[in-house]
Amino acid sequence: MKAEIIAVGTELLLGQIVNTNAQYLSQELAALGLDVYFQTVVGDNMNRLAEAVKTASGRADVLILTGGLGPTQDDLTKEALAEVLGRTLYIDPDAMANIERFFQDRGVPMTENNRRQALAIEGGTPLPNETGLAVGNAIALNDKFYIVLPGPPKEMKPMFEHQAKPWILKHVLTSEMPIFSRMLKFAGIGESALETKLLDLIQAQSDPTVAPYAKEGEVTIRISTKAANEQEAAVKLDAMEREIASRLPEHLYANVDEPIEKTILDLMASRGLTLSAAESCTGGLLMEMFTALPGSSAVFAGGIVCYSNEMKEKLLNVPHDLLEGEGAPGAVSAETAKVLAEQVRLTVGTDFGLAITGVAGPAHSERKPVGLVYIAIAREGADTAVFELNLKGNREIIRLRAVKSLFYQLWRVLQGKQGF
Amino acid sequence: MKAEIIAVGTELLLGQIVNTNAQYLSQELAALGLDVYFQTVVGDNMNRLAEAVKTASGRADVLILTGGLGPTQDDLTKEALAEVLGRTLYIDPDAMANIERFFQDRGVPMTENNRRQALAIEGGTPLPNETGLAVGNAIALNDKFYIVLPGPPKEMKPMFEHQAKPWILKHVLTSEMPIFSRMLKFAGIGESALETKLLDLIQAQSDPTVAPYAKEGEVTIRISTKAANEQEAAVKLDAMEREIASRLPEHLYANVDEPIEKTILDLMASRGLTLSAAESCTGGLLMEMFTALPGSSAVFAGGIVCYSNEMKEKLLNVPHDLLEGEGAPGAVSAETAKVLAEQVRLTVGTDFGLAITGVAGPAHSERKPVGLVYIAIAREGADTAVFELNLKGNREIIRLRAVKSLFYQLWRVLQGKQGF
Repeated sequence: MKAEIIAVGTELLLGQIVNTNAQYLSQELAALGLDVYFQTVVGDNMNRLAEAVKTASGRADVLILTGGLGPTQDDLTKEALAEVLGRTLYIDPDAMANIERFFQDRGVPMTENNRRQALAIEGGTPLPNETGLAVGNAIALNDKFYIVLPGPPKEMKPMFEHQAKPWILKHVLTSEMPIFSRMLKFAGIGESALETKLLDLIQAQSDPTVAPYAKEGEVTIRISTKAANEQEAAVKLDAMEREIASRLPEHLYANVDEPIEKTILDLMASRGLTLSAAESCTGGLLMEMFTALPGSSAVFAGGIVCYSNEMKEKLLNVPHDLLEGEGAPGAVSAETAKVLAEQVRLTVGTDFGLAITGVAGPAHSERKPVGLVYIAIAREGADTAVFELNLKGNREIIRLRAVKSLFYQLWRVLQGKQGF
Repeated sequence: MKAEIIAVGTELLLGQIVNTNAQYLSQELAALGLDVYFQTVVGDNMNRLAEAVKTASGRADVLILTGGLGPTQDDLTKEALAEVLGRTLYIDPDAMANIERFFQDRGVPMTENNRRQALAIEGGTPLPNETGLAVGNAIALNDKFYIVLPGPPKEMKPMFEHQAKPWILKHVLTSEMPIFSRMLKFAGIGESALETKLLDLIQAQSDPTVAPYAKEGEVTIRISTKAANEQEAAVKLDAMEREIASRLPEHLYANVDEPIEKTILDLMASRGLTLSAAESCTGGLLMEMFTALPGSSAVFAGGIVCYSNEMKEKLLNVPHDLLEGEGAPGAVSAETAKVLAEQVRLTVGTDFGLAITGVAGPAHSERKPVGLVYIAIAREGADTAVFELNLKGNREIIRLRAVKSLFYQLWRVLQGKQGF
């Protein structure tokens, strides 16, 4: 079955916002087995909106419209769709009650134009909005299916997940069993190397299907299967997960959609382990990413950004002879990384101490090449592990990859996969 | 004049990547005075690609196609366009030489399919690719204009800026003078408050035009004017910049497109001033953002992430009585922020010391509300400045706004706008 996504909003056509909704919906529709052949963006204009709906109706079975459900005169999506379908609009009482409650709770008078957000198309199913005011809609007509969703992602995503997807499974994919999916997350391996290892599974369109699922800076595989119920699906998904894990035992870190630092946080918190960090070229990025996680204070106590050589000496007791002088290893060296990790662990007083020192670029440093980075993991009663990285990319990418590499090695240590 | 953007690529329809090209091109076309009424995304499929081009030709004067210029059999954009236009394709010798040189330089044999990247449409103008191999194209035919650009943003953007835009100015906007633009960057003010202050200028479509230009987490205005040459444009842009500056003297920090931390870095570097930071709830974000800038080592020496109370005492000598006990102000307080800023300045030995402590959420802390944040700026020989912030948003947004607020206050200090 063919689907088409129509994103509505002049702010998209002016380039004021990027169309992340189209990406999200495309991924979700692909997971449901629907083929998206076109995405369209159209402004808040009655005629052009109607034109986009007509064009899409001519070439797709399922139309997903997102945006243009707000209270202003510019928000015309439902009006345009109703006109094309020859249907009238009415005020959905549940949605209206929700809107009135919203204004009452805040003690603010509701302006008349807010009633527009409760409009629904005659003969359709209103889709409740968990996180906002504008009601969505789903309509089946003449073997075509129309779904209307709000524009703001924080309203659109829950409405798709909890309202539109079940409606599609029930009304569109009637003859089919529901789809169950699982995300497998990998670290320490690139996307193409991963795909090579799983190529036979990806190409065979096996059951469960195995598909790469792109996310910025992460390597993810989504496995999906059709099944009568969750239990039956779990049996099939478990088997495929085991097969994939057996091919990539050192890289599969989670079967839920979370970054590796979250896996590390949970592993360490459950064992009562604590962490500190010393960062040179990454300037705080590792600590920033770790503390971005709620609950990170249970594991992470603090750390030091030692950007200059002087600070490496002053705050972390790195011997001057290591950093400077004829024949000294220098700040960017395995020796310095080792001392930084050990010293920050002692200074802060934690179970683990992490360190990163390197050349992020664009300029060289100590005559060492851009991309040369040393990472280290210190732990009480064990030898400090040091790794040399030769990273490609610009300053931003080198910094991110250095941090991700260190998280990967720490995860291996915690898994007992790294001899320590 | 109407323009339409067609982004080509099955990876877009599968949601594997987000269509940032459409946003970039929409902003650029709007700045040229072209109206984008539709954006379309279509897969790597000959028939559907041709259909998208025909539909767009029926409703727009200028078609911009991006993507599908690579070496594989899936890359069909030029073939589809040539077919719709009834033109043949030929190998552009300059592009071919460039491709051959690329493989020679790397000592890798060139596979035959790479010749496809040199294809150009008969009667069109090949657009050289500065950063990649696939040549672009610009064609004028029957009062319509077709521009073909590569898909990867790092190839597409320079080709648009240096090749396509001049071609549009010369061949499409023939009767018009070229457009000159300037970006004005603001801090310490929200987008809607800014627009209110400039509403008359925005709505009047004055010369220069004044338009909000959206960028994640930044408030930017783009002023544009048509002029015979750069000098003439500068006179008009200068006058408008002065008008806007006079309305927002405390907020306009740059007239080039750079983040406020870059403005701060340049101001401080030119005066030989140095900086350190102590971060609690932001966990290293401020230091990470500052050190993301090349050249930051001239100003930033180092700093401390003191996530736990113990670390505030141990690494930065915050008195225990300030942090804990009956009636103590606590870690999230003006008093603690002040000590952190002063102590990090002394510990690292810099001209300025910055500090952030607060409740980023999702959980409350010290019975203080999520979003309560204290920021402080310490400087030798001056009273330490402390600001209380009450920020809205999730953990990520609160952390980012806390850092941006501190950068804003530091900029004011450096400008002499903040009594110190």
